[in-house]
Amino acid sequence: MKVGFIGLGRMGIGMAANLLAAGHELTVYNRSADKAQPLLARGARVAASVAQACSGAQVVITMLADDNALQAVACGDGGVLASLGGGAIHVSMSTISVDLSRRLARSHAEAGQRYVSAPVFGRPDAAAAARLFVVAAGAADALDECAPLFEAVGQRTFRFGDRPDAANVVKLGGNFLIASVLESLGEAMALVGKAGVDRAAYLQLLTSTLFDAPVYRNYGGLIVDRRFEPAGFAAALGLKDIGLALDAAEDLRVPMPLASLLRDRFLALLAQGGEQLDWSAIGGLAARDAALS
Amino acid sequence: MKVGFIGLGRMGIGMAANLLAAGHELTVYNRSADKAQPLLARGARVAASVAQACSGAQVVITMLADDNALQAVACGDGGVLASLGGGAIHVSMSTISVDLSRRLARSHAEAGQRYVSAPVFGRPDAAAAARLFVVAAGAADALDECAPLFEAVGQRTFRFGDRPDAANVVKLGGNFLIASVLESLGEAMALVGKAGVDRAAYLQLLTSTLFDAPVYRNYGGLIVDRRFEPAGFAAALGLKDIGLALDAAEDLRVPMPLASLLRDRFLALLAQGGEQLDWSAIGGLAARDAALS
Amino acid sequence: MKVGFIGLGRMGIGMAANLLAAGHELTVYNRSADKAQPLLARGARVAASVAQACSGAQVVITMLADDNALQAVACGDGGVLASLGGGAIHVSMSTISVDLSRRLARSHAEAGQRYVSAPVFGRPDAAAAARLFVVAAGAADALDECAPLFEAVGQRTFRFGDRPDAANVVKLGGNFLIASVLESLGEAMALVGKAGVDRAAYLQLLTSTLFDAPVYRNYGGLIVDRRFEPAGFAAALGLKDIGLALDAAEDLRVPMPLASLLRDRFLALLAQGGEQLDWSAIGGLAARDAALS
Amino acid sequence: MKVGFIGLGRMGIGMAANLLAAGHELTVYNRSADKAQPLLARGARVAASVAQACSGAQVVITMLADDNALQAVACGDGGVLASLGGGAIHVSMSTISVDLSRRLARSHAEAGQRYVSAPVFGRPDAAAAARLFVVAAGAADALDECAPLFEAVGQRTFRFGDRPDAANVVKLGGNFLIASVLESLGEAMALVGKAGVDRAAYLQLLTSTLFDAPVYRNYGGLIVDRRFEPAGFAAALGLKDIGLALDAAEDLRVPMPLASLLRDRFLALLAQGGEQLDWSAIGGLAARDAALS
Repeated sequence: MKVGFIGLGRMGIGMAANLLAAGHELTVYNRSADKAQPLLARGARVAASVAQACSGAQVVITMLADDNALQAVACGDGGVLASLGGGAIHVSMSTISVDLSRRLARSHAEAGQRYVSAPVFGRPDAAAAARLFVVAAGAADALDECAPLFEAVGQRTFRFGDRPDAANVVKLGGNFLIASVLESLGEAMALVGKAGVDRAAYLQLLTSTLFDAPVYRNYGGLIVDRRFEPAGFAAALGLKDIGLALDAAEDLRVPMPLASLLRDRFLALLAQGGEQLDWSAIGGLAARDAALS
Repeated sequence: MKVGFIGLGRMGIGMAANLLAAGHELTVYNRSADKAQPLLARGARVAASVAQACSGAQVVITMLADDNALQAVACGDGGVLASLGGGAIHVSMSTISVDLSRRLARSHAEAGQRYVSAPVFGRPDAAAAARLFVVAAGAADALDECAPLFEAVGQRTFRFGDRPDAANVVKLGGNFLIASVLESLGEAMALVGKAGVDRAAYLQLLTSTLFDAPVYRNYGGLIVDRRFEPAGFAAALGLKDIGLALDAAEDLRVPMPLASLLRDRFLALLAQGGEQLDWSAIGGLAARDAALS
Repeated sequence: MKVGFIGLGRMGIGMAANLLAAGHELTVYNRSADKAQPLLARGARVAASVAQACSGAQVVITMLADDNALQAVACGDGGVLASLGGGAIHVSMSTISVDLSRRLARSHAEAGQRYVSAPVFGRPDAAAAARLFVVAAGAADALDECAPLFEAVGQRTFRFGDRPDAANVVKLGGNFLIASVLESLGEAMALVGKAGVDRAAYLQLLTSTLFDAPVYRNYGGLIVDRRFEPAGFAAALGLKDIGLALDAAEDLRVPMPLASLLRDRFLALLAQGGEQLDWSAIGGLAARDAALS
Repeated sequence: MKVGFIGLGRMGIGMAANLLAAGHELTVYNRSADKAQPLLARGARVAASVAQACSGAQVVITMLADDNALQAVACGDGGVLASLGGGAIHVSMSTISVDLSRRLARSHAEAGQRYVSAPVFGRPDAAAAARLFVVAAGAADALDECAPLFEAVGQRTFRFGDRPDAANVVKLGGNFLIASVLESLGEAMALVGKAGVDRAAYLQLLTSTLFDAPVYRNYGGLIVDRRFEPAGFAAALGLKDIGLALDAAEDLRVPMPLASLLRDRFLALLAQGGEQLDWSAIGGLAARDAALS
């Protein structure tokens, strides 16, 4: 398939490589062009502008840091909306606000284009290994056309109907759930740790019994070892995503007290010098509050 | 082994049956004697008093509702402390306070007896199926002697050193983590549900990916279906256990804001008529707050 | 003084009347023109546009519902920025975001105009009675020039230096403190009320002793009587202001867990049909959670 | 009146002195007898035991640190219950649990004695100056008889009916409200302080307007100056009182999320070395979380 790919950050680079490996005809664009170099050897074409990446593409995928970055690329002169051909599909795969997703859906429809929202679960290593989980929503025909692309970057695709922003709220809810695990593990570890229990043995118990899931194994290990650097997913991004979940919840009038607690945790972490830390570092705050060394 | 077993509630009845099935010589005692009837046919002897259940036993297991019930059975004239032989072992398997566990350990030591704390994870069906997880702590020799009993009632035993109350804090921390899952799922379901996303499909996504663990599958299903009756573990017991975790945390000076939130949730649930509901019903409160029908 | 006044809502109408009474030459503008009628008889001129209200004015006061309303009036063709004369002063007296205040300060400076931020404490009755408290910040000369206007609408002016947005954060902090009183009174009333204590007598005790302040007397009475209609300050505005405080706090990296709790309370209130209620109605939620009739 | 007075701590010493000054015949008792010395010169008799302090007294007042101290003095051989004459009155003036108050009322009734609960608001300086506020509940005749005593120690008495424990829940609710002020001021000060606003000027604004009450003036000053030593009321006592409020609320099934937050604040304070600090030091935690120096 002829695919434009915009955004070669830590996630995007792996996804683009996997699309190439699957045989798709890829034109990539990144604001700082050097990021695209490794993909040249694998057969990618490098676009000099967003418009060029969109030109002739059946599908353009965006994988950008946040709402601002996506808006900068999607709107305005030479943006995706202005450049994409009639009937072509814009697939937004980054974690963005429900509100922006809704506005993009409307704008693309007005422009005679199609819009699919398809955020992913997984960290950069999963992106590199084509092991992402893709959460997709949009018109059924568009989702069908994109299916081979999702298969190239992920291990499984979950479809959530024809309203693209449904995929965004699902993704935000998922990140909220992960952060909830971080907080709950942090508090439990502070409790048993201050009681003198071996924290690694405790995690072993948890993940051998009711909590036998990747999220407890992976993040539990980081919290037990207080291994919060380097950041796989930075604390500031955690704050951003919890903020987006809370924004969506506010629009819908859904009080989420645990999400509010998580937001405060991220703020404390960032206030206290956590900019370089992984978001799992909020799992260390309960121990700090308890003055547990 | 000659074993006394005190407390034939929904958990105890299954555990006692499994001890009999494993060939142990069991003398059972329950305040209301009729609960013991089904065990007679399986070879149990029925004691007329706590003292009789202790008489000649190598090990006495208590499986009672709460601190008060255990204290009533353990202390005073004719209690376990007064009745147990020298060197015999009291194994407390119910979820009790760290404080009571510590006091019992001291009292048994003074009486020349041994004390093991061995609370379990699992609901009545797991008790009946000998699929409990046993969390045991106490003197190594006592734990070794009890190992066959734990094997008879559970699928796996985790040992947490020689201080019995360590097992209690581990158990309380575990129940806190389960309740945290209930709350986080409740909030996430309220968010995606009010956004129009199919809640069952959402749970399917979660448990197929990062949250592929029994606690999410089992409780998630109850929350999606709002199936909070009959209670496998009553809301009032949830409040009790979170209260015990907070008490232990207060003694240790460990702030646990998420545990505080859970306590408030259980109080709201019970205030609003939730006495008959399963503790997973706190997972329905976020939806109620959001006026989601 | 020649003054333009934009925004004749429940607060603005009283303020404008008091400026007229103090002898100022007032040109008023409101989106729906009929609101201006009562002021005509008192000597106000009615402008047909924002630009006309600004034309020739030494000072233009804006008193609008929120950021969006102020931006619509301040920016764009025919807006305050485009219409105000060189050296003239824009005094923003509504409760707006710290961020918008900062941006307006910059824009007015670039346009060779002056900008003063002067939000007020007080409800519509205080506005009508010229009993507002004015919190003002901006260049000292501009504040000096505006002093007679502040005196005309308020009982006292507090100056907070030369950075206009300081006044906004002070105002937002103040509204947060009021809402904190609502929540704390609500919880205390639920506690003593469910214990059978007479709530009115309890309030009497509080306001005769340590809590002898207007905020406890006024709002305490509303909460005791559950008299949440008509709204003096609507619940949705409460949510807006707590949201602005949290936004400012997020930018500054200040976790405010009590503010987070208040936000969740307003969301619950609005989700459950509280759109018509006064913001003090969050003081009734603790009783509702406790199933106290 | 012939009065026994038990408990000469920082509060009791001033109250006893004022009872003497008002002409009452006082027999005092304190565990460490040297505390009674200053009262000898003022005409007090010093009892060698609780029983001696009760002997012949019309009223015995207890002013002790907590539930445990009061139980030790009230119950058992030679305690108040065993020693007080028929028809005599036990007035408990310290801050104790609702539960203990209820049990004492029952026990005194069974012993043919009367029980009045009369906790006070005010710190040691107010006790010394006879400026306490007395919150009294119990049988009307008993309250009438005690009225002169309350007048001797306080500036005003508030009566809350004939159920003694009503006075305790009122007192606990009051302390909860004070602590709520500490937390709300702490968060507001962190917000405006990190925004660069002068905190003392901010407090000046608050206490000149809506928050013109002793609790804001006194505690606000401590928080602005971070003057948390010496402790007028120690942080550990704050934790105790919030815990008692939460216990009463749990019995009544009243969720109090703000009280839960306060409890976590006190725990963090004590975990981090705050044993010597005044309870107002929780008003410094928001600034610390925000890394505000």
